[in-house]
Amino acid sequence: MPVITVAIHPIGPDEKSRLIRKLTDTAVEITKVPADKYVVFIDEFENDSIGLAGKTRAEIVAEAST
Amino acid sequence: MPVITVAIHPIGPDEKSRLIRKLTDTAVEITKVPADKYVVFIDEFENDSIGLAGKTRAEIVAEAST
Amino acid sequence: MPVITVAIHPIGPDEKSRLIRKLTDTAVEITKVPADKYVVFIDEFENDSIGLAGKTRAEIVAEAST
Amino acid sequence: MPVITVAIHPIGPDEKSRLIRKLTDTAVEITKVPADKYVVFIDEFENDSIGLAGKTRAEIVAEAST
Amino acid sequence: MPVITVAIHPIGPDEKSRLIRKLTDTAVEITKVPADKYVVFIDEFENDSIGLAGKTRAEIVAEAST
Amino acid sequence: MPVITVAIHPIGPDEKSRLIRKLTDTAVEITKVPADKYVVFIDEFENDSIGLAGKTRAEIVAEAST
Repeated sequence: MPVITVAIHPIGPDEKSRLIRKLTDTAVEITKVPADKYVVFIDEFENDSIGLAGKTRAEIVAEAST
Repeated sequence: MPVITVAIHPIGPDEKSRLIRKLTDTAVEITKVPADKYVVFIDEFENDSIGLAGKTRAEIVAEAST
Repeated sequence: MPVITVAIHPIGPDEKSRLIRKLTDTAVEITKVPADKYVVFIDEFENDSIGLAGKTRAEIVAEAST
Repeated sequence: MPVITVAIHPIGPDEKSRLIRKLTDTAVEITKVPADKYVVFIDEFENDSIGLAGKTRAEIVAEAST
Repeated sequence: MPVITVAIHPIGPDEKSRLIRKLTDTAVEITKVPADKYVVFIDEFENDSIGLAGKTRAEIVAEAST
Repeated sequence: MPVITVAIHPIGPDEKSRLIRKLTDTAVEITKVPADKYVVFIDEFENDSIGLAGKTRAEIVAEAST
């Protein structure tokens, strides 16, 4: 009953579906725990709710695009 | 100051209210920590952000209704 | 595939076993999600790793026993 | 690579930005880990998804304003 | 600055090292976020602190080996 | 009832005590939520359970000291 949680900025449904499938496959291969025991949560945060080095991701993205 | 977090698909406000009341009651009875020390978070995830056995919950629900 | 996490000070194995059983029962009754979909984690923290009102739980317990 | 997560009721973008900056500054000063290693997530929960003492925050706010 | 957390029963250092490397590789490939932005935590729980279907993992393992 | 969680490598009791006090002070000042509503958890992970850029923190520390 392992649980994988990915905290990340908003991503598309296709990326979420692929993350859920591929992260599970990868973890199953390494741990030998059967796939049907794996739960995954994709926990999306808006850019003004994520910080790196004291700045919001919104600020970092704005600076990068200047 | 125990904290109970429930990660789950979207549920209704009545279910959330009952989960908060009943999970707190249950934990208070077992741990003897007073109720006013208990914090609960209901963390809802959309069906395309939850995975089981490598599939999204959206895929699982769609297959079940076929 | 709901996941319930309880962050709490160290408790005994009997309390952990009862929390796992009773919190699952309570959530199953309210959400109608089958019990075999429920995962629970009891996440224990030492008294110097928990804070309330800016004090560690170790300090609070020490003050209370004076 | 420390990660600070703040689970809280909905707050404004200015408060989020200040929390990210000031919590990072505070943790850097105490731990001596460089700021660019710190990630922060502000995890907002609606008032009916937060519980204290078995009541939802929505109920507590409603009672307080009566 | 995505963060991947794996909550799991105790595993060996080699499995942890491989999970950290391979889960990061997998997520980088899907999200196109550079690897040096990825943080991973392996959060190990003893068998009496994990529950499935209301039973502890310790009970489930004991039953399976009978 | 906000909850602040710090996921970090093992630190000393003095640093934990100061993080609990100062992070609470900082958050109280910004959010105006009273200090006695704030819970903090310091969640320590061993160096082989933390990853950055696909490497364990143990590997990164070993390389840095060569």
